[in-house]
Amino acid sequence: MVMPRWALPEHFEDVLPAEAQRMERLRRVLLDEFRLHGFQLVIPPSVEHMDALASGTGHDMDDSTWKFVDRISGRTLGLRADMTPQMTRIDAHVLNRRGVTRLCYAGAVVHTMPRSMTASREPLQIGAELFGHAGIEADVEVLRLVARSLQLAGARTVRIDIGHMGLFRALASHAGLDAAAEEVLYAILQAKDVPALREFVAARPAAAVLLPLPGLYGGADVLVRAMGELPDVPAVRDALGELLHLAKHLPDLPLSFDLADLRGYHYHTGIVFAAYSGRSPAAVALGGRYNEVGKAFGRARPATGFSMDLRDLIRLGQEALPAGAVLAPCEGDAVLQAAVAALRTQGEIVMSELPGHAGSWREAGCDRRLEWKDGAWRVVPLGE
Amino acid sequence: MVMPRWALPEHFEDVLPAEAQRMERLRRVLLDEFRLHGFQLVIPPSVEHMDALASGTGHDMDDSTWKFVDRISGRTLGLRADMTPQMTRIDAHVLNRRGVTRLCYAGAVVHTMPRSMTASREPLQIGAELFGHAGIEADVEVLRLVARSLQLAGARTVRIDIGHMGLFRALASHAGLDAAAEEVLYAILQAKDVPALREFVAARPAAAVLLPLPGLYGGADVLVRAMGELPDVPAVRDALGELLHLAKHLPDLPLSFDLADLRGYHYHTGIVFAAYSGRSPAAVALGGRYNEVGKAFGRARPATGFSMDLRDLIRLGQEALPAGAVLAPCEGDAVLQAAVAALRTQGEIVMSELPGHAGSWREAGCDRRLEWKDGAWRVVPLGE
Repeated sequence: MVMPRWALPEHFEDVLPAEAQRMERLRRVLLDEFRLHGFQLVIPPSVEHMDALASGTGHDMDDSTWKFVDRISGRTLGLRADMTPQMTRIDAHVLNRRGVTRLCYAGAVVHTMPRSMTASREPLQIGAELFGHAGIEADVEVLRLVARSLQLAGARTVRIDIGHMGLFRALASHAGLDAAAEEVLYAILQAKDVPALREFVAARPAAAVLLPLPGLYGGADVLVRAMGELPDVPAVRDALGELLHLAKHLPDLPLSFDLADLRGYHYHTGIVFAAYSGRSPAAVALGGRYNEVGKAFGRARPATGFSMDLRDLIRLGQEALPAGAVLAPCEGDAVLQAAVAALRTQGEIVMSELPGHAGSWREAGCDRRLEWKDGAWRVVPLGE
Repeated sequence: MVMPRWALPEHFEDVLPAEAQRMERLRRVLLDEFRLHGFQLVIPPSVEHMDALASGTGHDMDDSTWKFVDRISGRTLGLRADMTPQMTRIDAHVLNRRGVTRLCYAGAVVHTMPRSMTASREPLQIGAELFGHAGIEADVEVLRLVARSLQLAGARTVRIDIGHMGLFRALASHAGLDAAAEEVLYAILQAKDVPALREFVAARPAAAVLLPLPGLYGGADVLVRAMGELPDVPAVRDALGELLHLAKHLPDLPLSFDLADLRGYHYHTGIVFAAYSGRSPAAVALGGRYNEVGKAFGRARPATGFSMDLRDLIRLGQEALPAGAVLAPCEGDAVLQAAVAALRTQGEIVMSELPGHAGSWREAGCDRRLEWKDGAWRVVPLGE
């Protein structure tokens, strides 16, 4: 089959008027909310040097980024696949503040391949990142903002899955695993493959400390069980302490702990989370702590945050936006112009009636018209 | 010199908080204004098949577009360098309406090379396009919207240069020039190279009809002179008639006619224009009529519109946005939470004071703090 010239590449799509209006509205509501919490908007470029884009994020990011050569410098550039490393760069070297820095962003990112059968290759990423504070209070703030964002999108947060990368790293280190063995173990836990985990432990008895992990998921009671089942070493205690702090300070959020959750392995260092709305099986917000990403820019700073895809978010809400528009004569005197301006000031869409298109204005969205009647311009039904 | 990893490629830049906030504000103001005139927002993808992106726009666009191969289809994709062809595609084949369709957009476009020494390679394009109406009334509407947009950006429109591609094509056709000769002539007129024009005419006496063009620029009187100096054939009469219509219906706009202006040669078919604010030598809005672009998608529709770059626009205004923020304790009871929520409802930025960063909050933008005093939470000077 020959594809028509106007067909889009697979997993790319247009956002058409009704959806675009809702998306724009939600974009504003979320950016305003972030702003009121002190998160400052920044707009990084879509294209950067490849080594900056892939900083600290491992090979996953490199493979999902489209690359091309800069005619000016000859260096390899990439089309960003994620905005978080850009925030890290701006925090570390552009703003260069010494205290807490809160940043937010909204923009398109592009993936070479879709991340699922139904995913877009161009998520419209929106998110907030908090730099400069290592304490768990920052993660509490971020999780509150996630729940508030979903609420503003017209959705309920039905579950937030929480993991902790520090816990896995502490146990792997306690078991004396080298980097290669840690990678193997990571893949096993990621797949929740318990038989493979038993085999792994049979070959390396020191790794037995990791055996309880796949069973440790559920409510806050899991954390109490974990304290009994996991070795009592400082790094494990610290990680569990952070998780307990979340449970204590966010009693109103539906937190669900999963100590074998390693979704942020190549990126995150502390807590990681995924928020669900109940309307789709996929997470609608992803985030966590990534204190090491800035290191690639020569200035590692504590960092935690989250991001969402506006394409997913607008599917959650059911808000109907006001429709309809008023058709007005194309040309007229100052009295007509004043009537049109007054309607627009009230928020009414007023379209100019270009001549010769009778019968087609309903298709363009008009449901009323401005008509001279009894000595004034009045809004009457379109009546076509 | 070794470039640091965090340096951006030349002609790409971050938009930092103060500027980003003004840009976001202006983006909203302009999209709202477009909406109130009936222009509906659409959000096309950043990446499309190369043959769709370059449709009807000639080689200029092809050369300024970064390309890569789609792993799914094997076809060549491009990173859009202009959103107007995307609007044409959406009008022609996605919305597929039969009457007038007004569309608007705001998004980043990327150029392989900057268009000037000081230009960004990533303009933040914002614009409006009107499809389905061939009459000059649509161009009048678009020009009014250009002037209104500059006003909303805090700038005065000091000059709008107007040309007409139909005039050049009519004269070239009247002189019996073939496509190759027309291209040569185009380059000569583009460079305003009068000696070369005389030489060209010496070799092809029929082209003498084009000799008056470089002298025909200025106010509406130029159009009257043109009627005397140019051959009286229908296509020339039509083009001059359209320009006279603009002069008559837009007496309040500073129109300046330039009949040798060919800036839209590979793209436009009727009037073309460039609006200037006086604060920079470059045009801040470009537009015109391009009835043939849709043909590449199998459905040519009358089309006219304009676009601007938000990066340029925010340099025009001098509006100062409210600064400052309130620092509030990180944790507290329901009374504190209510006080914080009330401040945010009033539009105040309230930042949570994460512990251990005393002395650094002014740098983050705070100028006041929320303090418990005389039995209530009160906003007091930061006093650090």
